[in-house]
Amino acid sequence: MDYKEEIIGTLRGTQDQFISGEELADQLHISRTMIWKYIKSLRSEGYTIESVTNRGYKFIEAPDLMLPREIKKDLKTEFFGKQIYYYNEIDSTNLKAKEMAPECVDGTVIITERQLKGRGRMGKQWYSPPGGIWFSVILKPDIPPDHIYRLTLMAGISVVEALEDIGIKARIKWPNDVTINEKKVCGILTEVEAQMDCVNFVIIGIGIDANIEMDMLPAIMRVSTTSLKEETGNDIDRVLLVQSLLDRLEKDYNTYLNGNFDLILNRWKEYSSTLNRRVKIVTRFKSIEGEAVGIDHDGALVIEMDDGTLEREITGTCIYL
Amino acid sequence: MDYKEEIIGTLRGTQDQFISGEELADQLHISRTMIWKYIKSLRSEGYTIESVTNRGYKFIEAPDLMLPREIKKDLKTEFFGKQIYYYNEIDSTNLKAKEMAPECVDGTVIITERQLKGRGRMGKQWYSPPGGIWFSVILKPDIPPDHIYRLTLMAGISVVEALEDIGIKARIKWPNDVTINEKKVCGILTEVEAQMDCVNFVIIGIGIDANIEMDMLPAIMRVSTTSLKEETGNDIDRVLLVQSLLDRLEKDYNTYLNGNFDLILNRWKEYSSTLNRRVKIVTRFKSIEGEAVGIDHDGALVIEMDDGTLEREITGTCIYL
Repeated sequence: MDYKEEIIGTLRGTQDQFISGEELADQLHISRTMIWKYIKSLRSEGYTIESVTNRGYKFIEAPDLMLPREIKKDLKTEFFGKQIYYYNEIDSTNLKAKEMAPECVDGTVIITERQLKGRGRMGKQWYSPPGGIWFSVILKPDIPPDHIYRLTLMAGISVVEALEDIGIKARIKWPNDVTINEKKVCGILTEVEAQMDCVNFVIIGIGIDANIEMDMLPAIMRVSTTSLKEETGNDIDRVLLVQSLLDRLEKDYNTYLNGNFDLILNRWKEYSSTLNRRVKIVTRFKSIEGEAVGIDHDGALVIEMDDGTLEREITGTCIYL
Repeated sequence: MDYKEEIIGTLRGTQDQFISGEELADQLHISRTMIWKYIKSLRSEGYTIESVTNRGYKFIEAPDLMLPREIKKDLKTEFFGKQIYYYNEIDSTNLKAKEMAPECVDGTVIITERQLKGRGRMGKQWYSPPGGIWFSVILKPDIPPDHIYRLTLMAGISVVEALEDIGIKARIKWPNDVTINEKKVCGILTEVEAQMDCVNFVIIGIGIDANIEMDMLPAIMRVSTTSLKEETGNDIDRVLLVQSLLDRLEKDYNTYLNGNFDLILNRWKEYSSTLNRRVKIVTRFKSIEGEAVGIDHDGALVIEMDDGTLEREITGTCIYL
């Protein structure tokens, strides 16, 4: 039994009433001294718990942290986030996830308040200050290695729809940026460890600039980046968003595994800000310009060149012209 | 300075002569007591060093182990095996390599005398007793993730040619078995950690049944497996084979990186026992029969079906009919 879990659950359940240490002790079959120790420990985690002599304890507020206890409470998923590893700060959740993956169950989440060495695509630095949502999900699907493109598209729509759940309208910029008003608010970094014919594990890393003041970001980033707080004017409930996101991700993942990637691709098209737009795609080897006319099953963007020919790009940096 | 390295080098250099502790001590600027300690330590590693009062030390024999010191001696490569991690026993060299890869330089080798949890393709158990050659190379090429098929083909020809260097004629059974007289003598397990558009690192795991008595293998394996010792009647010099193999691998890797995969593919075709043969290919999803008529740039086997149509299989289990 996780006593802290039980105590916070009981205090929450009694709402605005006090509950005595004796009552808690009786209920959990431990001493009042132990109750006091657990309360102290919960407070050190950031919980606000009032205590009044002769009346007992009252729950006031959970900390503004993405504690596993808070995320798991009311989480509707079957396996996404059933196992959560939480870090106050960490180098990078993807790095940690890759380290832990061999021993972890499908759907395990690594989450942190702050990444010290957050990374985006192509090894680029990813600024990850407190207030954002930085997490990775470990998946062990029985799929060919090159399907991770599909999982990236999938994660994109899960994010858009989870944002929609809290009233925020976002779109997807190919291949993996979630944007609000054409500014990036979320990045997705999918990584895979694979053999020739099977995946050992996939890591989907998701970084959302949630409750981040724009002046906390380097000036150069403010041109193309925004945060949920900047766009809505309010702090959002990060725990609620993570719950919603895990729920969406699990549903979309099941849809994908059940052979219905078409449905995901259709929704991707709907949310895409890239399709029917003149774009420049820069890859490591070349740079092309044309109109983005479609997306294919592998996640490749189809570009119609000025001479009418079609080009496919599976990856690259996309610039809107 | 690695004193043990220096001492064994000096003793080896003087061939059949004794060299006194005093001379060694003078040369290395350390005490004779320290020389004695290092000699003791070298002996505990398995080196046979004779010592005679008033005459000194004489090198007799290196141990039959794949010590980095022995492999690096006379190694002709530029970066393959310049860094070698050696374990008397270990779970699996691929597993260890994946763990260490983020911090390792290109060409780093993990080698062991014995794997406790050796694995082959599809997570199959890989029996790895002492006497075999079990190692993994860590590579960090700037290539797309799906090129690991090519690296597997490449490693196959490196193994065949390294065996040829010591007078053993081997062939390749698609996709990644090296065989002698149609029995498997070496397996290659390529693994990759990648993002959508770039490889973080590739691990090429190579397992060779070198000096292994057939009755050390489970009976069921003896039908389809052989060892270098079984085929040649002699113990081979494992250190020499590993040196030759690292040299071949480095050359072939450079050939591949320089855009000359064609040359590798041509040699693969030459060594292949699969081409122009009636085969059954079993994948996770289906099983097909036909004649193996070619191999394409991705490493896919091209099979001509009885109705004349061509099928491509990028992976699967190949059975000769």
